[in-house]
Amino acid sequence: MGRHFLQIPGPSPEPDAVLRAISATTIDHRGPEFQQLGLRVLEAVKPVFGTTNPVIIYSSSGTGAWEGALANTLSPGDQVLFYETGHFASLWVEMASRLGLKPEVIDSDWRHGVDAEAIGARLEQDTDHTIKAVCCVHNETSTGVTSDIRAVREAIDRAGHPALLMVDTISGLGSADYRHDEWGVDVTIAGSQKGLMLPPGLGFNAVSDKAIEASRRGGAARSYWDWEPILAANERGFWPTTPSTNLLFGLEVALQMFAEEGLENVLARHQRHAAATRAAVNAWGLEVLCLDEPYHSPVLTAVLMPEGHDADAFRALVLDRFDMSLGAGLGRLAGTVFRIGHLGWINDLTLMGALAGVQMGLRLSGVPVAGDGVAAAMTVLEEGAGA
Amino acid sequence: MGRHFLQIPGPSPEPDAVLRAISATTIDHRGPEFQQLGLRVLEAVKPVFGTTNPVIIYSSSGTGAWEGALANTLSPGDQVLFYETGHFASLWVEMASRLGLKPEVIDSDWRHGVDAEAIGARLEQDTDHTIKAVCCVHNETSTGVTSDIRAVREAIDRAGHPALLMVDTISGLGSADYRHDEWGVDVTIAGSQKGLMLPPGLGFNAVSDKAIEASRRGGAARSYWDWEPILAANERGFWPTTPSTNLLFGLEVALQMFAEEGLENVLARHQRHAAATRAAVNAWGLEVLCLDEPYHSPVLTAVLMPEGHDADAFRALVLDRFDMSLGAGLGRLAGTVFRIGHLGWINDLTLMGALAGVQMGLRLSGVPVAGDGVAAAMTVLEEGAGA
Amino acid sequence: MGRHFLQIPGPSPEPDAVLRAISATTIDHRGPEFQQLGLRVLEAVKPVFGTTNPVIIYSSSGTGAWEGALANTLSPGDQVLFYETGHFASLWVEMASRLGLKPEVIDSDWRHGVDAEAIGARLEQDTDHTIKAVCCVHNETSTGVTSDIRAVREAIDRAGHPALLMVDTISGLGSADYRHDEWGVDVTIAGSQKGLMLPPGLGFNAVSDKAIEASRRGGAARSYWDWEPILAANERGFWPTTPSTNLLFGLEVALQMFAEEGLENVLARHQRHAAATRAAVNAWGLEVLCLDEPYHSPVLTAVLMPEGHDADAFRALVLDRFDMSLGAGLGRLAGTVFRIGHLGWINDLTLMGALAGVQMGLRLSGVPVAGDGVAAAMTVLEEGAGA
Amino acid sequence: MGRHFLQIPGPSPEPDAVLRAISATTIDHRGPEFQQLGLRVLEAVKPVFGTTNPVIIYSSSGTGAWEGALANTLSPGDQVLFYETGHFASLWVEMASRLGLKPEVIDSDWRHGVDAEAIGARLEQDTDHTIKAVCCVHNETSTGVTSDIRAVREAIDRAGHPALLMVDTISGLGSADYRHDEWGVDVTIAGSQKGLMLPPGLGFNAVSDKAIEASRRGGAARSYWDWEPILAANERGFWPTTPSTNLLFGLEVALQMFAEEGLENVLARHQRHAAATRAAVNAWGLEVLCLDEPYHSPVLTAVLMPEGHDADAFRALVLDRFDMSLGAGLGRLAGTVFRIGHLGWINDLTLMGALAGVQMGLRLSGVPVAGDGVAAAMTVLEEGAGA
Repeated sequence: MGRHFLQIPGPSPEPDAVLRAISATTIDHRGPEFQQLGLRVLEAVKPVFGTTNPVIIYSSSGTGAWEGALANTLSPGDQVLFYETGHFASLWVEMASRLGLKPEVIDSDWRHGVDAEAIGARLEQDTDHTIKAVCCVHNETSTGVTSDIRAVREAIDRAGHPALLMVDTISGLGSADYRHDEWGVDVTIAGSQKGLMLPPGLGFNAVSDKAIEASRRGGAARSYWDWEPILAANERGFWPTTPSTNLLFGLEVALQMFAEEGLENVLARHQRHAAATRAAVNAWGLEVLCLDEPYHSPVLTAVLMPEGHDADAFRALVLDRFDMSLGAGLGRLAGTVFRIGHLGWINDLTLMGALAGVQMGLRLSGVPVAGDGVAAAMTVLEEGAGA
Repeated sequence: MGRHFLQIPGPSPEPDAVLRAISATTIDHRGPEFQQLGLRVLEAVKPVFGTTNPVIIYSSSGTGAWEGALANTLSPGDQVLFYETGHFASLWVEMASRLGLKPEVIDSDWRHGVDAEAIGARLEQDTDHTIKAVCCVHNETSTGVTSDIRAVREAIDRAGHPALLMVDTISGLGSADYRHDEWGVDVTIAGSQKGLMLPPGLGFNAVSDKAIEASRRGGAARSYWDWEPILAANERGFWPTTPSTNLLFGLEVALQMFAEEGLENVLARHQRHAAATRAAVNAWGLEVLCLDEPYHSPVLTAVLMPEGHDADAFRALVLDRFDMSLGAGLGRLAGTVFRIGHLGWINDLTLMGALAGVQMGLRLSGVPVAGDGVAAAMTVLEEGAGA
Repeated sequence: MGRHFLQIPGPSPEPDAVLRAISATTIDHRGPEFQQLGLRVLEAVKPVFGTTNPVIIYSSSGTGAWEGALANTLSPGDQVLFYETGHFASLWVEMASRLGLKPEVIDSDWRHGVDAEAIGARLEQDTDHTIKAVCCVHNETSTGVTSDIRAVREAIDRAGHPALLMVDTISGLGSADYRHDEWGVDVTIAGSQKGLMLPPGLGFNAVSDKAIEASRRGGAARSYWDWEPILAANERGFWPTTPSTNLLFGLEVALQMFAEEGLENVLARHQRHAAATRAAVNAWGLEVLCLDEPYHSPVLTAVLMPEGHDADAFRALVLDRFDMSLGAGLGRLAGTVFRIGHLGWINDLTLMGALAGVQMGLRLSGVPVAGDGVAAAMTVLEEGAGA
Repeated sequence: MGRHFLQIPGPSPEPDAVLRAISATTIDHRGPEFQQLGLRVLEAVKPVFGTTNPVIIYSSSGTGAWEGALANTLSPGDQVLFYETGHFASLWVEMASRLGLKPEVIDSDWRHGVDAEAIGARLEQDTDHTIKAVCCVHNETSTGVTSDIRAVREAIDRAGHPALLMVDTISGLGSADYRHDEWGVDVTIAGSQKGLMLPPGLGFNAVSDKAIEASRRGGAARSYWDWEPILAANERGFWPTTPSTNLLFGLEVALQMFAEEGLENVLARHQRHAAATRAAVNAWGLEVLCLDEPYHSPVLTAVLMPEGHDADAFRALVLDRFDMSLGAGLGRLAGTVFRIGHLGWINDLTLMGALAGVQMGLRLSGVPVAGDGVAAAMTVLEEGAGA
């Protein structure tokens, strides 16, 4: 009974208007109506990335967009510097290995954002520029920590290093402040099923001129992911292969909603919900995984379970009793962390319902709860409510 | 952003499956596919009313179904005994007057259910049986008080009075225990937009054999509301005029959901949500309008605003800041009462979101709030959650 | 497989955009969002009726709107002059009788429109003005014949008779030219499920000042149908009882589609489809029921079955073999007539599919078919296609 | 006005039930509800391919599934034998080149199916087995010609050659007879937006044991397309990356529709529509592109424009005047061919509407039309209609 509470950090609950839009009959992807749709969507998507350059839209998951970024710019054997902020960063490293690249990884405790200094230091050592790209995750979905991408760019520049900067903001885009052009990112990777509030099925690559040049000079053997035919077809509003037309219907609606609310307001809303959620976690006496104060994710909050309590058993109880999905701990955090998503088509009261569900679930699971997190969250939300 | 919290006592939030069903293209209401639909729906609706007799389905609001009940069984000039439990009872009286009936009203303080003894006493006086019908509201939507309909029937029978018993359970059906046959009701009036979780547009009359006989013997001049041609056409699954086919699509889905959950579970769920809501109101130090302990409505809770505070200003703030609709005080309760609906396609966490919205709204409105109602509600919901 | 061909003269196939609109969650019918919707819809509906006066919208079928027209303006015992153009006119007469009015009927052969002269002649005889209203059907759904309403008004005026003019354009509105104000109609009756391309569930009364005055002075005992409280509430965008909100969502979309296409284009489109259909019927060597050349309905075409062939058996075969619903012969036309609807969300190719289905069905039914009606229809449609 | 006629050879019109299914809110792709969905869909999809082996489902277009087939089984430098039946076969060759394979192409006139003898002859010459795979298109979407895949397998076997057999049935699956296991295909490539009647966004690889072995032994550097992690996750109903959940919702519904209708009936229906379409083309005096009598596609019919007439101008006129999309001539057929799709959620009358649109469009374009193709098509459809 009632709407399921989908409080994982993506896929996120979609607006009804988006869902209705994707339920229209598919149109001819070679016809004039599609062409106008294509041109509108390709233009309207740019501001969300903070770019005036093209944005490639793949029929794929976000993972596919990772592969697109790597395949277009790097050749087998190329060395790539990754910063492992969490599980998804580690999966991207694994992909790079499988694709024949040579990933080098700066490890971390999975509780902080990217250490731009460490990246800079490594690049300074790389005097013959064997490192071809630096890859970071902007909003690490497994930990709820964001990273200072501008600082990474500055560190690369300070090192005078020509490496490309590639950033995964799959779960950040449309929820956390992001500026592809201003921050000097070369390839930005995103997906449809997070802040864009669409079903999964679209992957994105926002590309700098430098990235496009790199793709023209080299990259891996590639076809599906190849930017060139897509960019060429996109100029007239088309795709070289059959696009996910129905998701593009939805994307147009979602982008209109962004434009109406105003991107700044969208970001402020996420920050507010994140602050309320952290207030709840603190009141419960639980520990937020992120230790990096300015880098708490506005998209999700990862919470450490107290010793002796299994996060997955807790999540199963919450699902069973309260019909709410929470995110699991991933990789080395499995069983010890649960994640509360606060993105997508939700509002203050949805969030309060979700936090009430967490609080009741904790108590029913026998987890010691220090105080009333729901009350603490309300205190945060009362300020500036509806402003 | 996010789904609106529709916490009025109806129309209630519809299940997605119901909304999808009503969005199918209308079919030929004279064809075999419709016929099968008609037969299925007319049969499946009976258990919700607790009847094995026919249920008439009008294309109308619930108000229309009031008129159907009166027009089929009573003739202009007939005397009818009403018990005024609240605003909707008073509107029904007004309708009776407009239709040329002679309503006699037993007044009340709008904070208790029907006093069956008072009805019995009045009927005993009516030795020449000028009173043709007794009309009561089962779940008074304006006050959040239910009434003991079985007791009313018993009082009528004890008085040895032949009056028909007509009961409005527009906002009770599908949420509060109701038994047309067992309680000896002659005409039960209901609507689609409350516990049945459909959009407004269908009105219902469940009818006893005695009521049908009365309609054959007399009643007012009537056409649209006339049971006879409807009952005749319904036998083969049809309607004499164009039915609201798309709402019947939705009704079938809603009734399937009832059958799957089990009517007893549906009723228990409403009771649980009502108990949690009252716990919140009590904790806030506010007064529930209903003073009749066993007759708190499982559908809605009406709350008295403290002196000096305007319920409508509070509701406007809640709508503006938290995108939640609450019910207004009606009639003599205007401005002094607000109503929280807890019916329709909601669950524990929806209710917690709603109560959090009320609590935040009260504080932001400057209403003195004694304690944490949200916490009190969670205590109720933790017990038997998901059971 | 495939979309059902719903080629009855209503309910008509709804636009996808309308169906999506009605599938939105119902909103608070007492809140500000509804108020704006109400004000917009009540204004936007007027041009389709050709009026600047109010239009009452009931939660009811079109039949209910008949009752609304009669109940507000006429008192039991009032004499009313009906012109029986077909089955629906006869049903309206039957309703009048049931409601205690005294209908007087000018009969016809059901193959022509209203004979305004006959009405005028009758009114001239009625020197003491016992006839209170003249009731006609503008587009007789059972016969496919329209009537010259302007001529009826002129005949009434020439007779210097004060009778109200009430017109049923349930199946004409939005498809056939109609001008409430210009033609001097007092009450126009319509429904949602025909030219307005909505599901059934809304009934309409467009009202002249004279009709409103009549309703204030008299009319029958009434409540649900009473214009006065509706007009009063409508002034602020509301309804006195719970309106069919979801159908109002759809009505707004349908009216926007009308505004975009332009009412003149809408009417021309129906005329074109009707002409193509008649060309097909003529080519088949079958007889169109309507014998009144200028009054062929743009909404539907009724076709006489040749002797010895059962129209209902033919319709059943078409439904079974080609998944198309055609309209039955009604009343005295049962079994001898079938009706092809050409209204609602259809286009040239839908119509061609429908006519092909009729032609194949005729042949498979063993009905002698003189020539290729489909080819004849194409010849009509080729002219001005897409213009 | 009215539903667009989408008569391209895919994307095809989706059933309303499919569109409603994909408009449900996305669920947690790591939760138990998804798991059950995954297990059901992965099992239910097998019969459509005629396999009991696993079917990999990608979030991608059909083109992505081509890449999946190649990347898992072939290593850069591997020689692959392609048979160019048309434009899509040539695009697949181009992909193979881009991915570093060495395609060898047996050319054709694009008007016949695969010449299995020619493939056998080539393989017999390849005594050292440098050819690693034979790639064919089962239903060539650009030409409307199918191929005898069983004969190709037999030719490979007669040559005693170990090459893998990879078959693209992107536009054939669910419309044309296909038997992955029985015909000994190693990798079958398909997509969602054709016979499966879904929006684009899913790519499929049905895989033989031999293909899986080949992928374990070798293949290209790969990640997104890698079968192994998908097969492993699929065993429990999950995917390693975020799947296109909403399309899986739709896929389940489409597969249920297949099961209800029966795959044989589905195939017969397509054959019947194809026969009716060819009868129309012949009657018009136009030439069907396919010259291979038993290999006319049941999915689409490609038609040659007479000299001096531009197929694209004709298609533009049909779109403008009759709101119907037809397929363009592709590659070397551009401008000289148009294609009529007869797949997806259509029925006899939809097809008749489409053929009427083509016939009227031809006449309005000034193309000499010998006879009445619409009449000819009706003659075909009358036989066995609805059987």
